[in-house]
Formats: sequence, structure tokens, C-alpha cells
Amino acid sequence: MKEHKPQSKWKNKLHEVIYEADTPSGKLFDIVLFILIIISVILVMLESVDEFDQRYHKTLLTLEWVITIFFTLEYIARLISIKKPLKYVFSFYGIIDFLSTIPLYLSYILAGSQVLLAVRAFRLLRIFRILKLVKFMGEASQLQSALKASRAKIAVFIYVVLILSVIMGTLMYLVEGDKAGFTSIPRSIYWTIVTLTTVGYGDIAPQTNLGQLLATVIMILGYGIIAVPTGIVTAEFTRNKKNKEVDDKSVLVHVNTQACPSCSIEGHRDDATHCFNCGHPL
Amino acid sequence: MKEHKPQSKWKNKLHEVIYEADTPSGKLFDIVLFILIIISVILVMLESVDEFDQRYHKTLLTLEWVITIFFTLEYIARLISIKKPLKYVFSFYGIIDFLSTIPLYLSYILAGSQVLLAVRAFRLLRIFRILKLVKFMGEASQLQSALKASRAKIAVFIYVVLILSVIMGTLMYLVEGDKAGFTSIPRSIYWTIVTLTTVGYGDIAPQTNLGQLLATVIMILGYGIIAVPTGIVTAEFTRNKKNKEVDDKSVLVHVNTQACPSCSIEGHRDDATHCFNCGHPL
Amino acid sequence: MKEHKPQSKWKNKLHEVIYEADTPSGKLFDIVLFILIIISVILVMLESVDEFDQRYHKTLLTLEWVITIFFTLEYIARLISIKKPLKYVFSFYGIIDFLSTIPLYLSYILAGSQVLLAVRAFRLLRIFRILKLVKFMGEASQLQSALKASRAKIAVFIYVVLILSVIMGTLMYLVEGDKAGFTSIPRSIYWTIVTLTTVGYGDIAPQTNLGQLLATVIMILGYGIIAVPTGIVTAEFTRNKKNKEVDDKSVLVHVNTQACPSCSIEGHRDDATHCFNCGHPL
Amino acid sequence: MKEHKPQSKWKNKLHEVIYEADTPSGKLFDIVLFILIIISVILVMLESVDEFDQRYHKTLLTLEWVITIFFTLEYIARLISIKKPLKYVFSFYGIIDFLSTIPLYLSYILAGSQVLLAVRAFRLLRIFRILKLVKFMGEASQLQSALKASRAKIAVFIYVVLILSVIMGTLMYLVEGDKAGFTSIPRSIYWTIVTLTTVGYGDIAPQTNLGQLLATVIMILGYGIIAVPTGIVTAEFTRNKKNKEVDDKSVLVHVNTQACPSCSIEGHRDDATHCFNCGHPL
Repeated sequence: MKEHKPQSKWKNKLHEVIYEADTPSGKLFDIVLFILIIISVILVMLESVDEFDQRYHKTLLTLEWVITIFFTLEYIARLISIKKPLKYVFSFYGIIDFLSTIPLYLSYILAGSQVLLAVRAFRLLRIFRILKLVKFMGEASQLQSALKASRAKIAVFIYVVLILSVIMGTLMYLVEGDKAGFTSIPRSIYWTIVTLTTVGYGDIAPQTNLGQLLATVIMILGYGIIAVPTGIVTAEFTRNKKNKEVDDKSVLVHVNTQACPSCSIEGHRDDATHCFNCGHPL
Repeated sequence: MKEHKPQSKWKNKLHEVIYEADTPSGKLFDIVLFILIIISVILVMLESVDEFDQRYHKTLLTLEWVITIFFTLEYIARLISIKKPLKYVFSFYGIIDFLSTIPLYLSYILAGSQVLLAVRAFRLLRIFRILKLVKFMGEASQLQSALKASRAKIAVFIYVVLILSVIMGTLMYLVEGDKAGFTSIPRSIYWTIVTLTTVGYGDIAPQTNLGQLLATVIMILGYGIIAVPTGIVTAEFTRNKKNKEVDDKSVLVHVNTQACPSCSIEGHRDDATHCFNCGHPL
Repeated sequence: MKEHKPQSKWKNKLHEVIYEADTPSGKLFDIVLFILIIISVILVMLESVDEFDQRYHKTLLTLEWVITIFFTLEYIARLISIKKPLKYVFSFYGIIDFLSTIPLYLSYILAGSQVLLAVRAFRLLRIFRILKLVKFMGEASQLQSALKASRAKIAVFIYVVLILSVIMGTLMYLVEGDKAGFTSIPRSIYWTIVTLTTVGYGDIAPQTNLGQLLATVIMILGYGIIAVPTGIVTAEFTRNKKNKEVDDKSVLVHVNTQACPSCSIEGHRDDATHCFNCGHPL
Repeated sequence: MKEHKPQSKWKNKLHEVIYEADTPSGKLFDIVLFILIIISVILVMLESVDEFDQRYHKTLLTLEWVITIFFTLEYIARLISIKKPLKYVFSFYGIIDFLSTIPLYLSYILAGSQVLLAVRAFRLLRIFRILKLVKFMGEASQLQSALKASRAKIAVFIYVVLILSVIMGTLMYLVEGDKAGFTSIPRSIYWTIVTLTTVGYGDIAPQTNLGQLLATVIMILGYGIIAVPTGIVTAEFTRNKKNKEVDDKSVLVHVNTQACPSCSIEGHRDDATHCFNCGHPL
């Protein structure tokens, strides 16, 4: 017990720095982490560009090792300083932390695992943890609540879009056949979604007259259907706004044009019997 | 009559299981049907992928036969257990049920009818019947009512879009000629709709300067026009929401400017015969 | 004067049939005209499809002559029955009527004027005149008024979009050069509008890294900017709705569920102390 | 001092003409400038079209010299007539004015600087200064305030879209590999944004089944996500409108939680000094 206490103190300090953002050292840690994450994601991107990688391979690798060692130490520190390390290991951020640290080591052990180096880009997700701490997400929560409130309606909407896509995709497969890229029903459905969402790559495009007519119907449908999620979310936002406005200490009061007979002030509530300014009976 | 009664009971039981979803056995039947429909639609999709079909043709065919036989038995059971079988046969779901069961049999009888096997994908539509029963569609009905209320406006909108497409398509046909794929007016109209809905495949694209200028106008039109259906549906949603909110204790009442002859209070309902404040007849 | 009167009567009758839609014969005339316009536009479309034209050239030409003669007679009748023929000739519909009748005659007189046959598709515009008469446009007028109210805002919006396109197009021309199709500033602007409106043909696409980065900015701008016309039109629609509901003398009053002890009527204001119907104290 | 005064007067006059728009000569100057800017931008565009430039090179160059000299004189006049010339030189419009005047001179001094001639198109930005003066921007300011109010939410939205693009782009790079154009992570991210914003060029398109499935998810996400900025901006517009409407007799009053010391009634206005119910001083 005696031994444990000072260690615990040291652990507590570490926990404060790593997991919290209220102390100056905790804030500093978050800012350093934030910058390192951004740099490391940019490094991963640049590495994937062949011409760039060939010229600066050594520099990129050195920087990557520095960052990976930092992230490894951070991962170990997180494990040590928390009370239930296993819970952290299998939590969402625990898995992200592990996956974004391990690929560089693996690429030396396992042949062919170089391909996994791109996984390090998921480090970007770690940014959300930092943002959560520093309470940057005030506005985001409003967006979230609006989306959450309209979740059920959006689910129904996506469900209808998917069924529509399967039906229309099958029809296009029947109409167009193997010509023009409609080689199978799944590919036809892929094309239907490309069209319905108004993306329109053009890698697959109908060639027959009937196919083009059907495509026209799908396009106008997609053009109109987009109004539905927009309508849902907008209605939710408008409602949110209204609730918020009325929320605190500001109330929509019916005010009449009556002037106080004593002080001539205007703007009395409809149900007022005395002037709110001088107390004279109205 | 004596003979009829027990048979009727047996039929009633079958009717309950197949057509309703309130009893445990009815629910079970719906769930089994739901899963089978999903599996069968996935099978139809996989079959249409050549490489997949060549490798697993036998397995796919066996599974398909199992499902088809189940659907055949279900179709017969539906015919037996309902009072007016003919009405069912020619109803929307009756036709869907028949069309999604028959193709596999036909493919053995009629040469060249293999092409119709894709029709089985329409089985997906049967899902709507199940969802209707289990009352999943609570949210959907709200969407439906919003869309129904704005039906007339959306019709006018689509009508204007179509006329615009014909006019613009003809103009583009005159401007671009056979170059760049504007080979006929219908194809030009197809291109106009592709552009107006912002899909933009790029299989046909204007080459001349005048054509590109006109295309620009169409694009900005399409970009702006999309605001119309969105506005219509959103206004409908917002109204729906408001009506619901006001529903409880706050009502929109027609109020006239009449003042009570006794207490001079104002704000009486149009149908009021006495002052709500002092009770004096109005 | 004596000669004039009976002729005037005959003219009046003709005027009624052609220009109005309140009499049975006027309605019939409009319906016949409507059908003929639709048929004639479909004919023009089919003619422009080469394979179709080659096979049925004679039938198409015969039908076209029937319709052209009918339209010619109609044009003459319109000229005769109206008081100020010149005003009609130079009115919007007068010009449309003339332009959609003359091409077939011209194609025999002037060599090379066959290209103008497509102009006949503009006959479609004549439909609007008929719809105006039969008052089909009830819903349309609501759309129109919403659009008219937000006209100024939409103009500013389009103006900003155009300036943005010129600036961004010039930047892309500088960045991409002649590679990848950015051969001149106007073409670059064309590409910018194709991208900003999310149409995205892909006939011109950035190849350099900087160009793709800039394109990304334009896309996200376009994706966000579309919210502006939608917001404008939606706010207008919502307001229209509200105005209609609240229009005259209707106020949002808090009503409770209390029933009058004397007359049992419900719907009293929260602050009511007497029944508004019988005056009994609540 | 004596010498200075009349010069100052002359400078004041010049300042009035150039920087203001309230006097007739100031208005005239603005209109001339407006027309010259439009003409010059059109000239720059036409010059960039090779075929046009080759034919009319001399005319274009002459006109360009006329406009450049006018703009040079204007620039000098602006420098002279303002009190703090340096502040103008380094202001936004000062830099725009300089950049849009200098390229023609530079093209004679520096070899290879012809490429910069396109920079002159940025002269278009100068139009905003003129519009600001003539108060054309009444409607625009309303748009601006709505956008400004929803700035924070739009920032969060764009931020989420960008992170989503990086994650999805990396996934597509892993899934599609070098086939089909996904040669690096930045290019993959470019493709993801092209898809998410529903632009869809089709220069890069997924070829594998898994890639097309993932693309489908991105499309539906993008199709739904567009509802968010629209919802934000629309809610802002609707609120703007409402505030304006409520203006007449119903006012949003700040109410505090203070209770009357005499009758304990709550809901007093912040500026109230007496209870509105009993008249007791607060």
C-alpha cells in the first residue's frame, strides 16, 4: 500500500495529462498530439504519391519513425495510466490507436504488409477525441441532435431509395442487356444509384432508346427525391431554432399599443392591469 | 353445411397465419417470408454475375428451386384461404406474387425465356406487404402525407421541367447538329434532362461555343430549379411539424375585433356569444 | 354598317371559339388543338431520328402536312377574328404560331432550310396558352408568386455564381494550361460552371495536382452554395403558407380543455373567466 | 499652407469623383469604370481563344492598351487623391487594382510573363467596389447575414466532409489499388470529393465490386449530407423572415426571473420598475 500510493499519484498525473484537457500540461499535450496527427496523415498521403516517395523516401521514413515511436510511447502511457487497461484496449479509440501505430512495425515483420501502411491515415479519427475534450463540438452537437431526431425518417428514406434502386436496376438490366456495361444486376444497381444520386460518372450509360427513357425517369425521380431528406432536416433545424429562442428568459408576449396614462410608456403585456414602469393602474 | 364448417375453420387459421401478423404464428410466417425474399433476391443478383454463375451454377439453381417451391405453395395457400380468390389474383400483390414465382417454370417450357428470370427480383416488392402488416411504416406515412399534400405542385413542377427539356433539347439539336452525339431530338432531350438534373454523364457533351453557352444556361437553371421541389416539400414538413406541436393546448382561433359591451375586453372568438371575461352577452 | 354587323357576329362567334374556353365549342377547340400540338411535337421528334425517318418518311410527311394545314387555317382564322390583327402578329404567341407553321412551306422554297424543321417543336409553347385558358395553372401561380418574391435574391445569387465562375475559371486556365482541355478562358469558365453546379460531364477534367485541389474547392463551394437558392425559395414557401393560415384576424391563443358547466362548450381561452358562449362563470 | 489649400481642394474634388458615388460626376465615373471593366474582361477572355486571337490580334491589343492606360491613370489618381496612399496600396482593392494593371507592361519587360496576362480577368473583382458604392447590395446583405449567422455550423459541416473524404479516400485506395486511376491517396481523396458532392466526372471510376459497393455508400452519404447545409441556411432565412414579421404587435421581450414582492407574479420585462399586475414597485 505504501509503495502503491506514490506510484498512483504519478499515474494520476499522467492520466490527467493524457486523458484530460483542463490543466495547462493537459492542453499542451492535446495540442502537440493534434499537430503530430495532422503531420503524420500528410506524410502518409505524400508517401502514397509515387514520384514524391521516390525522391524523398528517406526523409519520409525518418519522420514516420519519429511519429510512430511517439505514438507507441503514448499508447503505452495510456495503458499504464488507466485503471482498466483492457477496457481501453477494446474501446473504439483503443483500437484506432493500435491500428494506426502497428503498420510500420508490421511492414518489417510481414512481407507484403506494406499495403497496410495506408491504414495509418485512420489516425485522423483520433482528432475527434481531442476535439471532444476541448469542447470544440458545441455547434456539432446541434447538428447531431437535428440528425438524430430525423433518424427514423432518414432510415425509411434510404430504405425506399435502395428498394427503388434494385427494382430500377433490374429493369435496366432487362432493357439494356450486356451492351453499354449493364453486365449484371449488381452492376445495374450500381449504375442506378450513380444516376439517382445525380453523380453520373458516365462509365456506364444507356444506349437504347428505351433505356434512355427509363434513365430519364430515374433522373427526374432522383432530382425530386433529394427534396425529402432536405425537407426532413430543415424542418428539424427550424424547430430546433424555435425551441432555442424561446428557451431561456425570452418569451413571446402579446404586447398592445396602450400607453400608460401616467408615464406614457408603451409596450404593456395584454394581460397587464398596471403600468410596468410607474405602477399606475392601466 | 356440416362439412363446410370445419374446413372453414382450417381455412380461417391459414388465413390468419398468411394474411395477418397479430398472432405468434402469423408473425413467424412473416419473418420467414421476409428472410426468404431477401435471400431469393440476392440469389437472383448473384446469378446475373457471369463469373459467379459459372462457378456455383448448381448450388444457385438448387436454392432457387427450394425458394420457388416454397413461394408456389404460399401462392396456392393464399388462393385457398381467401374468400374471393379471383380478386386476389388480379390485385397488385397477386400479380407480383405470380410474376415472381412463374419465371423458373417458364424457363424449362419456353426456350429463350431465361431472360425473364431477372423478373424474380421484383419479389422485393413483396416486402412492402410484410412491412405494412407489422406497422413498420409509421414514419413512412408521415413522409407520404407530406408528399401527397404537395402532389399538385410537384406535378406542375415536373410538367414545366419536361416542357423546358423539350424546348432546350430542340435548341441544342439545332445548335450542335450531329456532332458530339446530338443525333436526334429525343437524344437531345435525353441530354438536356441529364444536364438539368445535374447528373451529367458526359457520354454526350456540347463541342461548339454556342452549345456550351446554352449548356451553361441549362445547368444554372437546373441548379436553381432544384430549389423548387425542396421548398415545396420542406414547407409541407414544417407545417406538419407545427400542426403537431400546436395540437395540445394551443389552437389557432379566429378572433374578431369586437369589444365586450360590459367589460370592453377584446379578443373574442368569432363564434362567441358572450364575453369570456365577464359573461355579458355580446 | 349594315353589312358589317352580321359579319361581325360571325367573327365574334369565331373569336369565342378560338380565343376563349368558356363555351362548349371553345373547350372542344382547345382540346383538339392540345392533342394536335402533342401529336405534331411527337412527329417532329420521330422525324429527327434517322432510322425512323427512313422507314416511315411518307407517313410522317403526310401527317405533318395535315397538321400544318390545320395550323395554317387556325392562324388565318385568328387573324380574321381578332380586331387588331397586327397586334396579334407581333405578340409572343403570334410569333410562336407563325414560326411553328412556316418551316414546312419554307423547306420547299428555300434549299437548305430543312434544318429549320426542328423549329416546329416550339409548337409545344402554344400549350401554355391553352392551359392559361382552362385555368389549369392554379398551383403554378403559387409557385410563380414564390419565385417572383425571391427574384431579387436569386438574381444576386446568380450574379455571384457567375463572377465566381469567371474568377475560378481563369485560375484553372492559369493552373492547367492547354493540357486536359482548358484551352481558353471561356472553356475554363464552362468547365467551372459544369463543376460548380455538380453536373460534372468529365469531358474536361483537371490533371495536375494543383488543378485537382482547386477543383475540390470549387466542388465543395458548389455543394454548399446550392443551399442558398433552396433556402430562399423555401423561406418564401413557408411564409406563403403561414400568411394564408393566419391571414386576417386569426391569432394563436392558448386554449384549455375546460368545458363550460352550463352549456358544455369547450375551447375557452386560458385567461377566460366566463364562458364565451353562454356567459356562465367558469 | 497657402499653396496647399487650393491643391487640397482639387484633390478633394478628385477624391469625391473617384471614391464616392453621391455626386453626378462620381456616378458617371463609376458607370464608365463599370463598362470598361466588363469590356476589358471580355477582351481578356477573347484573347485566350487561339483562333480569335490570331485573327484579331492587333485590334485586341490596341483596345487592351487603351484600357490599361485608363486604368493606370485611374491608379495614379487614386494614389494622389487619397490622404494615406500607402494604406490604399496594401488594401485588398489596392492590390487588385495593381495586379490588374501591371501584366501588360510586364509582358514587354519580362520574357515568359505573357502567361500572367490572364490575371487581368481579376479586374472583375473591382466591380464589387462599384456595387458597394451604388448600394446595389441591399439584397446581398440579407444573404450575407444569413450565411454569417450559420458560419460556425457550415465550418463544422465542411470539416466533417473533409475528414470523411480522407477516410473514404484511403479506403478506396486500399480497395481499388492502382487500377482505375486510384494511384495515390490524394487522388483517391479527390475522387471521393468528386463523388460526395455528386459532381461525378467519371475520369476515375471504381472497377472492382467492393469498390463499387463502397462508392454506392459514398454517393448515398453525399446525397443525404447535402441536406445539412441546406437545412442550416434555410432555418436561418426562415428565422430572418419571421423576426421581420413579428414586428408589429407581438414583440420578443426579455423577461427576467424576478417575482413581484407584493403579488409574487413573475415574467416582468427586464426594464420594468413596477409589477405589471399590481403596480407595486419592483
